[in-house]
Amino acid sequence: MVSSEFIEGATVGIVIGSDSDLGVMEEAATILKKFGIPFEMTIASAHRSPERAATFASSARNRGIKVIIAGAGHAAHLAGVMAAHTSLPVIGVPIDSSCLQGLDSLLSTVQMPPGIPVATVALGKPGARNAGILAVQILALSDPELEKKLKAFKTEMAEQVEQKAKKLQQ
Amino acid sequence: MVSSEFIEGATVGIVIGSDSDLGVMEEAATILKKFGIPFEMTIASAHRSPERAATFASSARNRGIKVIIAGAGHAAHLAGVMAAHTSLPVIGVPIDSSCLQGLDSLLSTVQMPPGIPVATVALGKPGARNAGILAVQILALSDPELEKKLKAFKTEMAEQVEQKAKKLQQ
Amino acid sequence: MVSSEFIEGATVGIVIGSDSDLGVMEEAATILKKFGIPFEMTIASAHRSPERAATFASSARNRGIKVIIAGAGHAAHLAGVMAAHTSLPVIGVPIDSSCLQGLDSLLSTVQMPPGIPVATVALGKPGARNAGILAVQILALSDPELEKKLKAFKTEMAEQVEQKAKKLQQ
Amino acid sequence: MVSSEFIEGATVGIVIGSDSDLGVMEEAATILKKFGIPFEMTIASAHRSPERAATFASSARNRGIKVIIAGAGHAAHLAGVMAAHTSLPVIGVPIDSSCLQGLDSLLSTVQMPPGIPVATVALGKPGARNAGILAVQILALSDPELEKKLKAFKTEMAEQVEQKAKKLQQ
Amino acid sequence: MVSSEFIEGATVGIVIGSDSDLGVMEEAATILKKFGIPFEMTIASAHRSPERAATFASSARNRGIKVIIAGAGHAAHLAGVMAAHTSLPVIGVPIDSSCLQGLDSLLSTVQMPPGIPVATVALGKPGARNAGILAVQILALSDPELEKKLKAFKTEMAEQVEQKAKKLQQ
Amino acid sequence: MVSSEFIEGATVGIVIGSDSDLGVMEEAATILKKFGIPFEMTIASAHRSPERAATFASSARNRGIKVIIAGAGHAAHLAGVMAAHTSLPVIGVPIDSSCLQGLDSLLSTVQMPPGIPVATVALGKPGARNAGILAVQILALSDPELEKKLKAFKTEMAEQVEQKAKKLQQ
Amino acid sequence: MVSSEFIEGATVGIVIGSDSDLGVMEEAATILKKFGIPFEMTIASAHRSPERAATFASSARNRGIKVIIAGAGHAAHLAGVMAAHTSLPVIGVPIDSSCLQGLDSLLSTVQMPPGIPVATVALGKPGARNAGILAVQILALSDPELEKKLKAFKTEMAEQVEQKAKKLQQ
Amino acid sequence: MVSSEFIEGATVGIVIGSDSDLGVMEEAATILKKFGIPFEMTIASAHRSPERAATFASSARNRGIKVIIAGAGHAAHLAGVMAAHTSLPVIGVPIDSSCLQGLDSLLSTVQMPPGIPVATVALGKPGARNAGILAVQILALSDPELEKKLKAFKTEMAEQVEQKAKKLQQ
Repeated sequence: MVSSEFIEGATVGIVIGSDSDLGVMEEAATILKKFGIPFEMTIASAHRSPERAATFASSARNRGIKVIIAGAGHAAHLAGVMAAHTSLPVIGVPIDSSCLQGLDSLLSTVQMPPGIPVATVALGKPGARNAGILAVQILALSDPELEKKLKAFKTEMAEQVEQKAKKLQQ
Repeated sequence: MVSSEFIEGATVGIVIGSDSDLGVMEEAATILKKFGIPFEMTIASAHRSPERAATFASSARNRGIKVIIAGAGHAAHLAGVMAAHTSLPVIGVPIDSSCLQGLDSLLSTVQMPPGIPVATVALGKPGARNAGILAVQILALSDPELEKKLKAFKTEMAEQVEQKAKKLQQ
Repeated sequence: MVSSEFIEGATVGIVIGSDSDLGVMEEAATILKKFGIPFEMTIASAHRSPERAATFASSARNRGIKVIIAGAGHAAHLAGVMAAHTSLPVIGVPIDSSCLQGLDSLLSTVQMPPGIPVATVALGKPGARNAGILAVQILALSDPELEKKLKAFKTEMAEQVEQKAKKLQQ
Repeated sequence: MVSSEFIEGATVGIVIGSDSDLGVMEEAATILKKFGIPFEMTIASAHRSPERAATFASSARNRGIKVIIAGAGHAAHLAGVMAAHTSLPVIGVPIDSSCLQGLDSLLSTVQMPPGIPVATVALGKPGARNAGILAVQILALSDPELEKKLKAFKTEMAEQVEQKAKKLQQ
Repeated sequence: MVSSEFIEGATVGIVIGSDSDLGVMEEAATILKKFGIPFEMTIASAHRSPERAATFASSARNRGIKVIIAGAGHAAHLAGVMAAHTSLPVIGVPIDSSCLQGLDSLLSTVQMPPGIPVATVALGKPGARNAGILAVQILALSDPELEKKLKAFKTEMAEQVEQKAKKLQQ
Repeated sequence: MVSSEFIEGATVGIVIGSDSDLGVMEEAATILKKFGIPFEMTIASAHRSPERAATFASSARNRGIKVIIAGAGHAAHLAGVMAAHTSLPVIGVPIDSSCLQGLDSLLSTVQMPPGIPVATVALGKPGARNAGILAVQILALSDPELEKKLKAFKTEMAEQVEQKAKKLQQ
Repeated sequence: MVSSEFIEGATVGIVIGSDSDLGVMEEAATILKKFGIPFEMTIASAHRSPERAATFASSARNRGIKVIIAGAGHAAHLAGVMAAHTSLPVIGVPIDSSCLQGLDSLLSTVQMPPGIPVATVALGKPGARNAGILAVQILALSDPELEKKLKAFKTEMAEQVEQKAKKLQQ
Repeated sequence: MVSSEFIEGATVGIVIGSDSDLGVMEEAATILKKFGIPFEMTIASAHRSPERAATFASSARNRGIKVIIAGAGHAAHLAGVMAAHTSLPVIGVPIDSSCLQGLDSLLSTVQMPPGIPVATVALGKPGARNAGILAVQILALSDPELEKKLKAFKTEMAEQVEQKAKKLQQ
């Protein structure tokens, strides 16, 4: 069984199209760790290992995964492949790894045809970080503890802005 | 209280930046009806009625809303304003209502800075339809009945492709 | 066996992501007919019917297919999915069916990551026509009759230009 | 009262979406200092601290502010939020801090829907400098001393061009 | 004297690069009329009548003009020429009259080099309307009556949104 | 005879528009070496040496060439010139050597008018590598040994992904 | 001799890539007629009739041509091919005939590599008209009569602007 | 008289919008020196020194100038201003000095409205070099010596390509 390769017990699955994008996608992992969400992080290319990618997606729900985060560059099909093989929510992180600076991966990820949505976030590291937060927001809908943490996180961000403003005014 | 204007009992809140975008956003409503999700649909402009927009978002969780869908054109800030005022998942539908054919609304919606994600879908009607499906996918995580319907919906789409293929081959 | 659905005896397989793109892709079929190449033409969506798409590609060589032509719009993953599941040459036709006028489908089709090429042609009808000609050029490498026809076709195009020029000068 | 945090006595308010954009926006401050315009400079994120941003704008006129300059990157909503909460003139400086090199912040700032204008200047440092000059131009309408200084500034720029031309010709 | 051609007594000068853009720029005039601002509206091409354009700008302040609004398409230099010849605030309206749908006029208007700002608004009719409002905002800084009208206008816009929302909910 | 300059015995001809693009196009050569395909690699500019370019293409078939790979930057006409002078399949590699980062060379290569196709691959090194693979795929249609190697190459790519995934999970 | 097909006695040669672009390029012819410049107008495709195109350019100087105007759409190589085969000045008119609205033909025409310039004008009809004027400007350098006509033409344009302005003010 | 500042005896006038663009525009000067064309090179900003720019253009013909080359970045109006004030041929070099990498200066230079052409060349150094060559091509129309040099230059370029090709093949 191919699915036996994947870790059991994770709630969020992070898939990366190439190990060269690992540095970007760790931003998502950092957020999930901060919120105490069990996750797995693996590599599966929509093009070089299409069966691995399809299996990851189609076996995800049974393995306990609730949200998939997929990050890829160039003609970024990975999130779309995930969404084609599962009805779990799929978050796509377009990565600016080609010379077109992400316009290719952004359009390849977000412009999905009707029927198969991908929840696309911003390009690169800001997007990967936001993918993590969006996954937490989705999970918090049925987890009041997580919801409290999210509110605290939001308050903390607002306070950081105020502190930086104070520092600037001095 | 401003929030009293909004309908109680909805699980998904659809906000539209301008009544001229209603035709696009009805695609989202059609999907929610199909899946039996109670929803409200209203107009709130991030720029012309910023308080109404902020109140819609900040009061949403207490009114029972679980997912917000926001559709807007031009410098489409509506989904971002929603996301700034709630920690519920916010889905953004960029609408191609300016002469730049949606490049402005797409980038304004998807390129959110780190900390405040917007789950962006495709431009225009395909995106509005997918926003509805994405909302259903999120809600189905804690609703096994909805999950079944989603699987049937996915199967139905695949079958429609096969039927169209058969028709073409004849 | 899923592959039993597909026609036997074709040398070129034309796959279309949606029946709404049929009008564009018929340009490819017209060329193949003109050169007497047996072909099949079917619908398979990378997203709505991913298994059908994968099966079409992975069974193609055994069914006698030598070249695959895939046409799709939006985040056009269809040609990439074909290329992922076969080592036959895959020609991608980006179609301008979204409001972004084909920039999305062009980048989604051409910007394939290293390892899995898609031979991308121009957007829309000119591209579909050229996809047909490119397929003929590939097949003509081992078919001297076809090569002769191609040369005649090229000469005919040059003559048509001269005739139009003459008509203009009068 | 949130507005108590903001400095009294300023005529121009410079708001920055993130402290990482400080280096760009100091160009505006340099111009204001040169012309002797009292100003305040603070940080307020449209997304991470929406209430702070709204309060800055809505309290600006009563605090004596006549022109607001707002600089932000990515999906730059800050100037739009300012304009939504005040009827003072708002100048927007799009900042090229994402991998899309400012196309996102430019379109997010300039493509405001009818009703709520943002006076958008060029991307990055040239734009921040011009935001300062535009603010001076607006204030000079009711300040003849400032108008004289502006004319001298314009003359000085023309002379600098001539001096550089002379230097080149030698 | 060329300037004798221009009307005396106007507070805002609207210049249009070509009479074909009149339909767009009338949106600015409509706003100025609504707020009771005396204005003149004329045609002056930066390229076909450069002296007329330069004279319009350089004589504007002495003729009583306080704000210039310039609308042009293609390589839209008109607002830049205005700004080069006056230190009055200049508002630029990029018009989408070429086949590039306004990307050319937007970049030609907004990307002014340091020293000479143009307050750029959105493309086409929404921008022309906003140019009128921005001019009113600038004039209102020294006109308390105008400020009151602006606040009423802003309130009216918010109320219109609420009314449309009510109508939708019924 | 100009054609005498070109090497005999090659199956693939790689043409480069400028020696500054050599580093990119070596990726194609590396693949051809790996698969044991005899190839020639030369420089011919569509603009600076148009006759050399035309002769390369028109003499290619008689010299035994079966596939042409052409790589160029800027207004990249080289692949189009090749395709105009031969009915062999021509693969175009757009190179990002101008300040527009490849958008110019991509559109110049892929947007061929109906009648003369260029099989365009991705920008830069990933595209050059894929051009090599695409050439092998075309040649493998009549070479069962090559087909076996291609399948092994594809399997190897999938295994590399799995190995990297394993390494990441540890 | 192929060149015998071309008309003798013309000073300007207008080449069009396809008869479908005739409507656009007639704008250039209209200007040349107005200034009494003898010209020829023909069709030659850089791709479908490369030898005809090359011959047109390489025989132009001996046939008395002084300036070549080339108009084409898509991956518009025609002006570049002209410039490669002559050292006469070549004016390129990019035509917006593909779904990308001219971005492809503009970049294909203007982004020529160092060594082989193409004098590129605006997209479509305005560009075709300007190509005619630019040709007249070049020819007027050694023709004082033409120079006088050009000055009158320029004065006439300025007067037309003033007349339209007067009409508007009434 | 302002025009007294400009050098007498030059045949080509090179104008640069800012001394920071000198490094780019020296490419044009290098070509003119190589062909023995007397030229002047000066700085004049369309925005910071509009009168200097207008005077340079309007006095050019009387000073003996036959071709003007204008190079500028951002919203590059300099070439357009030149063309507005003279009927000499004006060559525009768009310079990629803003964060948009030249898209702004390219569109501002090339998209001139009907009536006032600018002969636009490629972005940056390749364009500046080509501007010099285009000026030589125009001057060579009435200078048989120059024409011979141009032919030799063209032959030399073709030979350099062949030599580089030989070097590569060894």
